[in-house]
Amino acid sequence: MAHLYKHLRIHQVFGANTDVGKTVLTTALCRAAAASSRRVYFLKPLSTGHAADADDGHILRYAGPLSGRINADCLYRYGDPVSPHLAAQRDQNQRAPSDAEFVRSISDHIRKCAEERAESAMFVETAGGVHSPTLLGTLQADAYRPLLLPTILIADSRLGGISSTISAYESMVMRGYNIDLVLCMLDQPWSKAYLNHEFLTPWFAERGIPVCAPLPPPAKSENDQNNMEAYYAQIADGLGEIQRADQILTNAHKKRIENLESMPLRATKSFWWPFVQHDFIKNPEKDITTIDSAHGDSFSVHSHNATGSLLKPHLDGSASWWTQSFGHSHHRLALAAAQAAGRYGHVIFPLAVHQPALELAERLVKGPGAGWADRVFFSDDGSTAVEVALKMAVRAVALRRQQRAKAELGVLGIKGSYHGDTIGAMDACEGGVYNASVEWHRERGFWFDPPTVGVHNGVVQITVTNDSGTQEHTFPSISAIYDIISRLKTPLADAYRKLIRAELERLTQSGRAFGALVIEPIVLGAGGMLFVDPLFQRVLVDTVRESSDLFQTGQSKALGEWNGLPVIFDEVFTGFHRIGPLTPASMLGTTPDIGVYAKILTGGVVPLSATLATNSIFSAFNFPGAKKIDALLHGHSYSAHPVGCAVASCSNGRNQSCDRRKRVAGG
Amino acid sequence: MAHLYKHLRIHQVFGANTDVGKTVLTTALCRAAAASSRRVYFLKPLSTGHAADADDGHILRYAGPLSGRINADCLYRYGDPVSPHLAAQRDQNQRAPSDAEFVRSISDHIRKCAEERAESAMFVETAGGVHSPTLLGTLQADAYRPLLLPTILIADSRLGGISSTISAYESMVMRGYNIDLVLCMLDQPWSKAYLNHEFLTPWFAERGIPVCAPLPPPAKSENDQNNMEAYYAQIADGLGEIQRADQILTNAHKKRIENLESMPLRATKSFWWPFVQHDFIKNPEKDITTIDSAHGDSFSVHSHNATGSLLKPHLDGSASWWTQSFGHSHHRLALAAAQAAGRYGHVIFPLAVHQPALELAERLVKGPGAGWADRVFFSDDGSTAVEVALKMAVRAVALRRQQRAKAELGVLGIKGSYHGDTIGAMDACEGGVYNASVEWHRERGFWFDPPTVGVHNGVVQITVTNDSGTQEHTFPSISAIYDIISRLKTPLADAYRKLIRAELERLTQSGRAFGALVIEPIVLGAGGMLFVDPLFQRVLVDTVRESSDLFQTGQSKALGEWNGLPVIFDEVFTGFHRIGPLTPASMLGTTPDIGVYAKILTGGVVPLSATLATNSIFSAFNFPGAKKIDALLHGHSYSAHPVGCAVASCSNGRNQSCDRRKRVAGG
Repeated sequence: MAHLYKHLRIHQVFGANTDVGKTVLTTALCRAAAASSRRVYFLKPLSTGHAADADDGHILRYAGPLSGRINADCLYRYGDPVSPHLAAQRDQNQRAPSDAEFVRSISDHIRKCAEERAESAMFVETAGGVHSPTLLGTLQADAYRPLLLPTILIADSRLGGISSTISAYESMVMRGYNIDLVLCMLDQPWSKAYLNHEFLTPWFAERGIPVCAPLPPPAKSENDQNNMEAYYAQIADGLGEIQRADQILTNAHKKRIENLESMPLRATKSFWWPFVQHDFIKNPEKDITTIDSAHGDSFSVHSHNATGSLLKPHLDGSASWWTQSFGHSHHRLALAAAQAAGRYGHVIFPLAVHQPALELAERLVKGPGAGWADRVFFSDDGSTAVEVALKMAVRAVALRRQQRAKAELGVLGIKGSYHGDTIGAMDACEGGVYNASVEWHRERGFWFDPPTVGVHNGVVQITVTNDSGTQEHTFPSISAIYDIISRLKTPLADAYRKLIRAELERLTQSGRAFGALVIEPIVLGAGGMLFVDPLFQRVLVDTVRESSDLFQTGQSKALGEWNGLPVIFDEVFTGFHRIGPLTPASMLGTTPDIGVYAKILTGGVVPLSATLATNSIFSAFNFPGAKKIDALLHGHSYSAHPVGCAVASCSNGRNQSCDRRKRVAGG
Repeated sequence: MAHLYKHLRIHQVFGANTDVGKTVLTTALCRAAAASSRRVYFLKPLSTGHAADADDGHILRYAGPLSGRINADCLYRYGDPVSPHLAAQRDQNQRAPSDAEFVRSISDHIRKCAEERAESAMFVETAGGVHSPTLLGTLQADAYRPLLLPTILIADSRLGGISSTISAYESMVMRGYNIDLVLCMLDQPWSKAYLNHEFLTPWFAERGIPVCAPLPPPAKSENDQNNMEAYYAQIADGLGEIQRADQILTNAHKKRIENLESMPLRATKSFWWPFVQHDFIKNPEKDITTIDSAHGDSFSVHSHNATGSLLKPHLDGSASWWTQSFGHSHHRLALAAAQAAGRYGHVIFPLAVHQPALELAERLVKGPGAGWADRVFFSDDGSTAVEVALKMAVRAVALRRQQRAKAELGVLGIKGSYHGDTIGAMDACEGGVYNASVEWHRERGFWFDPPTVGVHNGVVQITVTNDSGTQEHTFPSISAIYDIISRLKTPLADAYRKLIRAELERLTQSGRAFGALVIEPIVLGAGGMLFVDPLFQRVLVDTVRESSDLFQTGQSKALGEWNGLPVIFDEVFTGFHRIGPLTPASMLGTTPDIGVYAKILTGGVVPLSATLATNSIFSAFNFPGAKKIDALLHGHSYSAHPVGCAVASCSNGRNQSCDRRKRVAGG
């Protein structure tokens, strides 16, 4: 719902605090804009206090010589001169709009103004400080965030105002707002000289933000209509700081549009996109999506509709490659990221512990690892986490087999699986079109045909395809398919068991050796969103675990010991409630020896992955009398980076900047 | 320089704004603490205004029945009742301390108090709001950051105070402070009821922070000494909000210590650390480094010295695996991270463009890619970026060789090189102790013996070791060794050229084929910090480029076309000024066809890597008439994630939250 129009320059005016001169300076800005634009729209979405004192009235009263060009509107008015959330509570006669209605009504108003198609300027004035609560108690900077209007920050020129101005600025920045201008009144001539503008001007200049410092209005005792009119005429009608401010806003507006319009072409000149055939790009403006911002479930993208808004919402249909869980740009995740960056940056991990990593590890062991995992190994993405999992599994098998030399230990997998794009992860997948041109890719394994779940003409069925042809099994409902416990006793389970065992016998008797079973439980994501018969996956896991004889890995009776082969569940795509339950493993009614998590893990902010393992796997590397080189010698520079761990814990619900009791989405 | 003592509970008092009652509430807290502790230390590090009105005097005047237990000190006093930075400027008689001196004097004071070894409490009261400038203009929250004292935030209970309180909170959180308590005065009985505490109490509770709401002091017109004393007696000496606050602070203090002390053991139970032989951990408390926070070049770690501070500074000697450049927890990087998280979260990258990625890509092409690179491919860490580089190079060679089937194309490299821990990156390195136990690792290449630079007994020399023995070449200075242009004409250069060419002939004539030359310019980091003779690396690059005949890759005369084999420089360890110049390639006087960057790229905040390439390499994948599967089919979910790109651009100096004109370190 962000807005950007060539002919309509829009700015939202936020105050560093209440009573810092927002309305006075906005009035002056309206007067100055009237000189440079054909129309000026002032909007106070929400006003509290007597209608006679309201800001829209003030604007019109002092609209100046070009007052005919100035419109002023107010959408919601409450009589009590207190914070809007209290005014709304105390007003029995007026139902307060929801946040969505509130923002939509502003959006509609902007669109109406834009339809007039005059070269124009608009100012949307907020109430109180940046975080003053709106009608239902949402903080103002959050409530207005869907609109993401370019912002003017009115500084506080009083004692203490440097602090409140900079804090307000930081609160805006961390919500993704662009601040085009800071206005800071000069000191009142009768006051102590706090000179806040002298401090703030270079401070903001370092951050690329201009500060204009207009004269303050007459003292309250002297601000009758004549004096105020003279004041406005003085600061707004001629050359001076307000006129300079108007020019700055116009330039910022132009630059924003120029930049946005230049982005697709520039991108095609410097990016090498993943998975993209650049030769297919014939028209960058149409072929490239220019993402100006994102909020909730949508991007705000550059629109090529020349007659209307230059921005339009665009549903993020894949949740940005299935990384998002709470929607884009959640302010709590942003603060959690900032908190960890501000407390640690990154800190080295081997033999070290820091709170975000410890909290997350304990959370993971108790969450997706509940009942089976003991250990968490952090890396950077799904692919590296799969490589870690493979190293764990294959080494554990090599030790059990008491091999001296490196054996060719492949993996057992399912056709159409995908585990990532580094060579090790690729090698754990069937060869196909996606890796045909990767010279170093070598299939290292055997891939079972997956029976798949589907609904055809309203009939729920499982399709079993293998060398002997295709069979359909119909079911009364989808839920019947996922009733694993009942289905384990059916003839189809027996058929699966026999087929799998026979295949394993054939493979091992032909001399092939294996180091892991690797599957994506329930659904093959990159492989085409195929839903695999969960019974097949369950029986595959069980049969592999019962076939130590074939794998020469010696059956162990000890609790928690892996048997047959280590079972790796790649839950990168499906983990963390993506398809319902916390982990898809629970839908198979079993647990892995090694689990791989990424994507949604951080709530969709930064890369981080985790490979969970049992102590049985762990002890293949770390055992009494082990040497240094027996350890898992794998690590990335940013292992367990605090920012990633903090947002991951936050997205699961607990740290100081996040809710301690409920998931972030609730807040 | 962080402080934590079992017997001394320390809190720093920050105000959401000036004039919110910091001193009044701290006085009350001191009185309450005097009832529960043997000693109470009040410290006002910096006071402006008349000495008679100073806060330390106020504390003592109203110290109450247990006043004998209360000490009050002030370290720096200025007469002018304005912001400290102005007071310091205006005072000709007093040299303002540097930020480091200022913090050190507070640190010394705390240490002295701790030495008294009484069960005690300390309050360090700041001046103005959280961001009020200190003596030299540094914002207070930044100036005090090295001490990272647990914090009490005094809310603003006036109109607008919800906003300033929450903004102040966010500014503190993003610097890594822990807020143990918020104090928000009830409304003055004669004022409009703003009820800020009613809003703030549940808001902070959701973030795990308790709010106490004591009565306000008498009106200014009535606050004579008797009334004030009665007020303090009422709110501080019995049961009530201040006593509850005191209990909250004590509990937070205990919990902080318990948590810190429990961390090493908990870590050994849930972490699987990279590169660590867990069996070597015999005493978690000694073997594990508990990092409570980090600032500048140091960690603040749990100290096992039971008699003194539980925290001590610990130099981060490896710059956290060479990821840090501006020091830990730089507030501008933290804000840049938050800004990108708040504007985008992560957004899908293929065929999309967003400002942080575009800005960074353009910056990289003009920076380390200057003069050679055209394209930037983003991935997550050095290892994935090397895999991308290898895929690029090997595919380009396969195309030039017009191979139909996958050929075994190895790499040329240098003994002792390290490129990462995913299988592809490992395979591009010599076999050795670190990959001996990785079943899937297969050396795919040939490794040259590197002549090394050293200083032995004051003599600068190059040691050449190969099958025919060891030779030493002495040099007048280290800089003579790096004078590549002059050295290219020396007999040693000829000897290198002949040796390399002969080796390449031998290798190719024996039927081996190659797909890339991969080197770490100047220094082999993980390989033991070996400085390789730059002349050798330069001649190796040149000779490979002149040997298209051997590699069957057809010499091209077109400008910018790769020849011989694509040359990959892995600059993950050495790039971005780590060893001086922006890129170590410049010390070789040549440029690669593909460059790999990570680690310091983000200024040490989050993982992100970039593989830069020439258009010559790019066009092997993207050419007129190419098909989708000719593209580089490699990508990770968080490709070009906005947070990483934003901090990377910020650490190179430009975005709205960062300096537009100079590197972040300067600010």
